[in-house]
Amino acid sequence: MTKKRTNKYKKHIKQSPGSIVYTGENPTEKLFINTFDYSPEFVTEVELNSVEEAYNFKDSESITWININGLNHIQDIEKIGNHYNLHPLIIADIANTSQRPKIDVYDDYIFVVLKMLYYDENEVIKIEQISLVLGRNYVLTFQEVEGDVFDNIRERLRIANGRIRTLGADYLLYALIDAIVDHYFIVTETMGNKIEDLEEILFNGHIQDDLSLQVLNLKKEVLKIRRAIFPIREIISRIEKNQHDLINENTIQYYRDIYDHVVQLSDSVDIYREMVWSLMDMYMTTISNKMNEVMKVLTIMASIFIPLTFIAGIYGMNFDNIPELHYKYSYFILWGVMIIIFLGMLYYFKRKKWL
Amino acid sequence: MTKKRTNKYKKHIKQSPGSIVYTGENPTEKLFINTFDYSPEFVTEVELNSVEEAYNFKDSESITWININGLNHIQDIEKIGNHYNLHPLIIADIANTSQRPKIDVYDDYIFVVLKMLYYDENEVIKIEQISLVLGRNYVLTFQEVEGDVFDNIRERLRIANGRIRTLGADYLLYALIDAIVDHYFIVTETMGNKIEDLEEILFNGHIQDDLSLQVLNLKKEVLKIRRAIFPIREIISRIEKNQHDLINENTIQYYRDIYDHVVQLSDSVDIYREMVWSLMDMYMTTISNKMNEVMKVLTIMASIFIPLTFIAGIYGMNFDNIPELHYKYSYFILWGVMIIIFLGMLYYFKRKKWL
Amino acid sequence: MTKKRTNKYKKHIKQSPGSIVYTGENPTEKLFINTFDYSPEFVTEVELNSVEEAYNFKDSESITWININGLNHIQDIEKIGNHYNLHPLIIADIANTSQRPKIDVYDDYIFVVLKMLYYDENEVIKIEQISLVLGRNYVLTFQEVEGDVFDNIRERLRIANGRIRTLGADYLLYALIDAIVDHYFIVTETMGNKIEDLEEILFNGHIQDDLSLQVLNLKKEVLKIRRAIFPIREIISRIEKNQHDLINENTIQYYRDIYDHVVQLSDSVDIYREMVWSLMDMYMTTISNKMNEVMKVLTIMASIFIPLTFIAGIYGMNFDNIPELHYKYSYFILWGVMIIIFLGMLYYFKRKKWL
Amino acid sequence: MTKKRTNKYKKHIKQSPGSIVYTGENPTEKLFINTFDYSPEFVTEVELNSVEEAYNFKDSESITWININGLNHIQDIEKIGNHYNLHPLIIADIANTSQRPKIDVYDDYIFVVLKMLYYDENEVIKIEQISLVLGRNYVLTFQEVEGDVFDNIRERLRIANGRIRTLGADYLLYALIDAIVDHYFIVTETMGNKIEDLEEILFNGHIQDDLSLQVLNLKKEVLKIRRAIFPIREIISRIEKNQHDLINENTIQYYRDIYDHVVQLSDSVDIYREMVWSLMDMYMTTISNKMNEVMKVLTIMASIFIPLTFIAGIYGMNFDNIPELHYKYSYFILWGVMIIIFLGMLYYFKRKKWL
Amino acid sequence: MTKKRTNKYKKHIKQSPGSIVYTGENPTEKLFINTFDYSPEFVTEVELNSVEEAYNFKDSESITWININGLNHIQDIEKIGNHYNLHPLIIADIANTSQRPKIDVYDDYIFVVLKMLYYDENEVIKIEQISLVLGRNYVLTFQEVEGDVFDNIRERLRIANGRIRTLGADYLLYALIDAIVDHYFIVTETMGNKIEDLEEILFNGHIQDDLSLQVLNLKKEVLKIRRAIFPIREIISRIEKNQHDLINENTIQYYRDIYDHVVQLSDSVDIYREMVWSLMDMYMTTISNKMNEVMKVLTIMASIFIPLTFIAGIYGMNFDNIPELHYKYSYFILWGVMIIIFLGMLYYFKRKKWL
Ligand SMILES: [Mg+2]
Ligand SMILES: [Mg+2]
Ligand SMILES: [Mg+2]
Ligand SMILES: [Mg+2]
Ligand SMILES: [Mg+2]
Ligand SMILES: [Mg+2]
Ligand SMILES: [Mg+2]
Ligand SMILES: [Mg+2]
Ligand SMILES: [Mg+2]
Ligand SMILES: [Mg+2]
Ligand SMILES: [Mg+2]
Ligand SMILES: [Mg+2]
Ligand SMILES: [Mg+2]
Ligand SMILES: [Mg+2]
Ligand SMILES: [Mg+2]
Ligand SMILES: [Mg+2]
Ligand SMILES: [Mg+2]
Ligand SMILES: [Mg+2]
Ligand SMILES: [Mg+2]
Ligand SMILES: [Mg+2]
Ligand SMILES: [Mg+2]
Ligand SMILES: [Mg+2]
Ligand SMILES: [Mg+2]
Ligand SMILES: [Mg+2]
Ligand SMILES: [Mg+2]
Ligand SMILES: [Mg+2]
Ligand SMILES: [Mg+2]
Ligand SMILES: [Mg+2]
Ligand SMILES: [Mg+2]
Ligand SMILES: [Mg+2]
Ligand SMILES: [Mg+2]
Repeated sequence: MTKKRTNKYKKHIKQSPGSIVYTGENPTEKLFINTFDYSPEFVTEVELNSVEEAYNFKDSESITWININGLNHIQDIEKIGNHYNLHPLIIADIANTSQRPKIDVYDDYIFVVLKMLYYDENEVIKIEQISLVLGRNYVLTFQEVEGDVFDNIRERLRIANGRIRTLGADYLLYALIDAIVDHYFIVTETMGNKIEDLEEILFNGHIQDDLSLQVLNLKKEVLKIRRAIFPIREIISRIEKNQHDLINENTIQYYRDIYDHVVQLSDSVDIYREMVWSLMDMYMTTISNKMNEVMKVLTIMASIFIPLTFIAGIYGMNFDNIPELHYKYSYFILWGVMIIIFLGMLYYFKRKKWL
Repeated sequence: MTKKRTNKYKKHIKQSPGSIVYTGENPTEKLFINTFDYSPEFVTEVELNSVEEAYNFKDSESITWININGLNHIQDIEKIGNHYNLHPLIIADIANTSQRPKIDVYDDYIFVVLKMLYYDENEVIKIEQISLVLGRNYVLTFQEVEGDVFDNIRERLRIANGRIRTLGADYLLYALIDAIVDHYFIVTETMGNKIEDLEEILFNGHIQDDLSLQVLNLKKEVLKIRRAIFPIREIISRIEKNQHDLINENTIQYYRDIYDHVVQLSDSVDIYREMVWSLMDMYMTTISNKMNEVMKVLTIMASIFIPLTFIAGIYGMNFDNIPELHYKYSYFILWGVMIIIFLGMLYYFKRKKWL
Repeated sequence: MTKKRTNKYKKHIKQSPGSIVYTGENPTEKLFINTFDYSPEFVTEVELNSVEEAYNFKDSESITWININGLNHIQDIEKIGNHYNLHPLIIADIANTSQRPKIDVYDDYIFVVLKMLYYDENEVIKIEQISLVLGRNYVLTFQEVEGDVFDNIRERLRIANGRIRTLGADYLLYALIDAIVDHYFIVTETMGNKIEDLEEILFNGHIQDDLSLQVLNLKKEVLKIRRAIFPIREIISRIEKNQHDLINENTIQYYRDIYDHVVQLSDSVDIYREMVWSLMDMYMTTISNKMNEVMKVLTIMASIFIPLTFIAGIYGMNFDNIPELHYKYSYFILWGVMIIIFLGMLYYFKRKKWL
Repeated sequence: MTKKRTNKYKKHIKQSPGSIVYTGENPTEKLFINTFDYSPEFVTEVELNSVEEAYNFKDSESITWININGLNHIQDIEKIGNHYNLHPLIIADIANTSQRPKIDVYDDYIFVVLKMLYYDENEVIKIEQISLVLGRNYVLTFQEVEGDVFDNIRERLRIANGRIRTLGADYLLYALIDAIVDHYFIVTETMGNKIEDLEEILFNGHIQDDLSLQVLNLKKEVLKIRRAIFPIREIISRIEKNQHDLINENTIQYYRDIYDHVVQLSDSVDIYREMVWSLMDMYMTTISNKMNEVMKVLTIMASIFIPLTFIAGIYGMNFDNIPELHYKYSYFILWGVMIIIFLGMLYYFKRKKWL
Repeated sequence: MTKKRTNKYKKHIKQSPGSIVYTGENPTEKLFINTFDYSPEFVTEVELNSVEEAYNFKDSESITWININGLNHIQDIEKIGNHYNLHPLIIADIANTSQRPKIDVYDDYIFVVLKMLYYDENEVIKIEQISLVLGRNYVLTFQEVEGDVFDNIRERLRIANGRIRTLGADYLLYALIDAIVDHYFIVTETMGNKIEDLEEILFNGHIQDDLSLQVLNLKKEVLKIRRAIFPIREIISRIEKNQHDLINENTIQYYRDIYDHVVQLSDSVDIYREMVWSLMDMYMTTISNKMNEVMKVLTIMASIFIPLTFIAGIYGMNFDNIPELHYKYSYFILWGVMIIIFLGMLYYFKRKKWL
């Protein structure tokens, strides 16, 4: 068995509990901070050069969205986390990108971890962690690398009369989560297409050597997607039931809408799960059908020609006294007999539906 | 892998959250609005030409059923929704036809999403979404295209002394849901017949090339039907427990009757599920039995004729000194020996039950 | 695919909700009504000629059991139901024989639907619905056709000093349900025997063509029995928790005893379920073992005789110069060589445990 | 299908509900009653000759353990049951040995049914029912036949300074249940060994004809053990939560310890369950591997000798003009060619790893 | 069946309930006791020579961690347990190393049992039990043999300004549990690697004889790891909900962080579980694909050469009158015919994709 893998957890566990360790694989050269500060009357969009510039937004009355990319810049993450009074364990969770989706509710802020899902150009599933912090009049978002999933929200923030501008930070958090969940529909649809592609390959009997591996990888993908989506149901339920000051009663209905989408996604994923699990059985029947076909060819060829060869063998014997050998038409009669046997066999196999 | 499918969700996610997007595939040219306005004393059945004509029914004391077909006419849906004070998210749900069955309870109205199931002429399952809104003295229903599932209710509304005429809008909602659920029995029965047909094909050993695909498609159908039926149990439970002003205490018993039907349907679907899951195993045994039969034919033919051919080969050898060749009756004795071997083999295979 | 089945639900759904439709398949010519009226002091057993005769028992102080067979006589069922103040939906449930076992608790009466299970003479499972109504001092039972499951209770009612005579209608209901549940033990035992018979057939390797169909039918039987038995646990629990006036506190313990039996039955059915599910796997290994045996015969025959035939072929060649042909003992030496090869092969297969 | 089994339930159901029927298969000739009466100061161990002798212990202040073997002596069981005020249904449960493990809590006593598990000399699982009744200052135990599982407790009761002597009847009940549960560890360990034995047989490829039956029987054993052990968790939970007068608060901790053991056993049984379920799959792969081996032998023999035989056949033909026949070294050259083909084939199969 | 195993439980059950028995397999020669006594101001690290030296720490105000290795030294374990007022059942649990992970909450202390998991040098999973007792200002830990999992904590205790020094015994307990749980990540990662290694072997079709046994052993490992990890979720939940005096409200958040990790681990283990369960199916398809390949070789060889041999057999017959034998070019024409048949067959198999 090969054992040359390095263990990414080894480093982590040598740390004190709650220490901040970046566990992802996409370090960026520079920390990227992007802010939207807005009220119904104005909107300001700024790219910041240092975390310190993000300090002032904490107590302003306008709504602020501070988006931070580059989780490997641990000191900066820690600085802004401390300024916004985040618990050290929360700051550690932000940097540790193998979190499970979850919600942590504190008196002053709500902390949500979600997973961004997307297929890369090779149709391999990619999973990125995104942490969201909702405080009074601000939302912080932390990611390794920026995707394009929030472009639509930025667009709407820039528009003067958009609903999003008139509502609070709790609505902004909703809009961000909604954008993430909406993106899952694309992912599950791609997943569904991949399953259907495999079904078609198996149906057409194009047995490729790596089919069982492809099925196995699909199983893993389904399970990973499941793991990203299912916990969100509990997150939204917690938001609904918690009646936290930071979430306006009217916004709850919007979170409930996300809940509906997540249940719908969960249902789809469960159906994909059943489908993928069936593919292996389908593969097995395809193999067995192929083998049946192979065996039929062999059986037909052997059943026809072995008896005929036996007959030819009989008249190849060298006994002194084989009367048939000396009749003039023996050879031709024998051909006739053999042709009759041949046709009889063909008819037999035809009737058995093997031909 | 083929990747030419268009992604129907792409368009949707570019929208603001809660924006109204028609996601179905059956746009109609014209919006169709049909109303029944009735009390014990009278009934008026009108086909409306514009949504504005439907506004007046909102506050009348008579019971009104407004049936709207053509969800692609988004502006009209939005207008009537706004007039009846539906939350923007509800209006969005009406137009988004990939909802999961659900209930949303508001102070002024109850919103229910259900799925119409039917088999088309090719025995392919079709799923249509229907949204129902129960308000004070009115019920709104929204569908893509009209089916014939409510014809019976219309019939009874037209009759002067029918019970339905004497009871409130909550009973009308019950009657509509009941008509939908009753229709599920036809669907599950058809499903049961399809499963039995496949069982019979497999039992008779008529192995068709696409059997594993047929089984897979049946699996998908069962899962889709499950997904349409199972959530209704929770919907009815919510209605029972909620004690909403809009639902009369006496009507609850009728909803409970729907619950019984849905549980009965759920049980049936679960049994179908088990049956379909077993079909693949049955298919596998059928294939293996077939292969056994093929192998037996080969083995019998080869086991009988290979030894006989060997014997013939012996006496086809050209050694100078093979005494048997020169005895007068050798050839005939040899035939006797071969016939004995032949019959012995037949007896052996007979005893083994291979013949 | 064959599609000539008639759909038994079609008729039903054209009716108004809650309308009374007989959905069974065993209409009787005449309605059969049989009553026991008893107190500790007396017992009167009468066969009634019309439902009207059953009206008087409603308010009498003596305990009355009214047993009604013949659910196709809908008008009569409705009349007696109305007289005993049963809700229209309850009357509809009585006539609709595809109910799931359930309990409905009303202020004045308790309505219970159960399933009678029995194997007919062909060992095919039969399921009959029985509806029981417990009111003040009376029990109504409704069945399609009378079985013999209550004979024992009738016997005991006729005895002057039986406990059943001294206790109320709630104890009578218990005794009736207990008789039904006791009968399930016979059914599950028969089911267990059928499973063991199949196990034995599979173990002995008597592969019959319809084995996979037999297993499939057993699966269906187990699921049907499960569906009849499992819901009773909830029914009894509801009776226990409800503390209804109609059920005496001391009788509750008797219902609890039924609960124990139903849990015991449920456990047995779950074990049968696992066993039946295993039979298909066992069948598959039996087939594969058979195939192995077939292949071994072929391989042994072919491996022994093909090389020998090759050798015979060599010395059947007509080359001018084959020195061996002319030695006097060549032929006999060759036989020796062939016998040695033959024995060597036998030894080889013996050592491989194929012989 | 064979149908000669007698139905053991038939007799039972002809009885009135709650009637006392012995359903076991181990009647004893004589009822055996054994009592321990003890306090911290004294212990008296007596074997009684009649149930009447056991009456006096009921109200004594000393703790009494009355152990009764021989459930077929129904009248005696009923007498003692009545004297100790047991509900008739409880007495019936004691005699009916097919109970599921359960607890019934009455005001004056607690009734517990458990299963004794042991493997007999043929390693077949045996299940005996034991009923325990905890009253004020006494414990009654009822069994069909005495095992040796309580010997240890008797030993400790005889010792003057044992903890058990200083504590109440509730501790005695604990000690008895604990002895039963401790014995389960031996059973599950034996079960584990049986599974490992089968794994080894399958791994070594010693395919025996009855392997699938052995696996099936193991499945049944696991399910039976499961059924005996799992309900105990609920029994102990009920004792904990009930706060019954008969159970001292300090003894609860001891019952909790049993709970820990039962959960531990449940976990083990679940793992065995998974293992046994896997054995059938393992058996299937073993069979298929065997078949692969068989097919390889056939294919190698046939692939090598069929072409060679063809070549020999060519030069066995009788055409007048076959030039090769007349060259002097043709025969030897041909041998060379055949040996090359033979070696080439060997190399080919070697490279394919079939040899 | 082999039956020579000794039964490790036999000895145990001969004991009184709650008696202290060491059930592990790693007795140490000497009891090892190591203590850390610390406050923000000082830290003292001592190795004790007798359990009596550990008595004084019980009531000191400084925080003490007493780590005890060598569970076979039962008298010593009992002495220290009694001094620290542990319930006799707790002391028994400490010595009994087959406990399931659990928490027992007493007024004066909290008792936690966990499992240490690690892979030994042969990649075989090892499971060690660790018991932790949290009292006022002290933590006791009991293990069979010391691992290195707490080295990091010792390191941090020695540092003057570490957070751990400033916080209470509840934080120390958290740090110890966290160290154990962090170590599970290494174990699950190794497990994941083992699964991927097997996947690769199966994908490459290197069928080894013991593959099904390897898969079975992996299944067992997954189940054992599951059993060690899953119960911790409940342990942490109990700590959270209990609001015990010994656990500071601020420390709860740290326990919640462990909870997150355990859920994450549980998710991973469940995915591994699904993967391992799939490996057997993958193995089966690999075997069947191999067999297909074997059969194709046989079928191709036989289908090509059996007809050709038949033709050769024809012209090896000795009929007096076979005209073809005497034409001059017959032999060469026949070769031509045979080559055409040979190529035709090759083309046929090529087109069938068997070559
Ligand atoms: Mg939804
Ligand atoms: Mg779901
Ligand atoms: Mg699920
Ligand atoms: Mg589902
Ligand atoms: Mg499978
Ligand atoms: Mg029902
Ligand atoms: Mg159900
Ligand atoms: Mg079910
Ligand atoms: Mg279900
Ligand atoms: Mg299910
Ligand atoms: Mg399967
Ligand atoms: Mg019971
Ligand atoms: Mg049960
Ligand atoms: Mg069960
Ligand atoms: Mg069970
Ligand atoms: Mg189940
Ligand atoms: Mg399964
Ligand atoms: Mg299976
Ligand atoms: Mg335990
Ligand atoms: Mg456990
Ligand atoms: Mg368990
Ligand atoms: Mg289970
Ligand atoms: Mg499980
Ligand atoms: Mg488990
Ligand atoms: Mg399987
Ligand atoms: Mg986490
Ligand atoms: Mg989990
Ligand atoms: Mg999961
Ligand atoms: Mg799980
Ligand atoms: Mg699962
Ligand atoms: Mg499976």
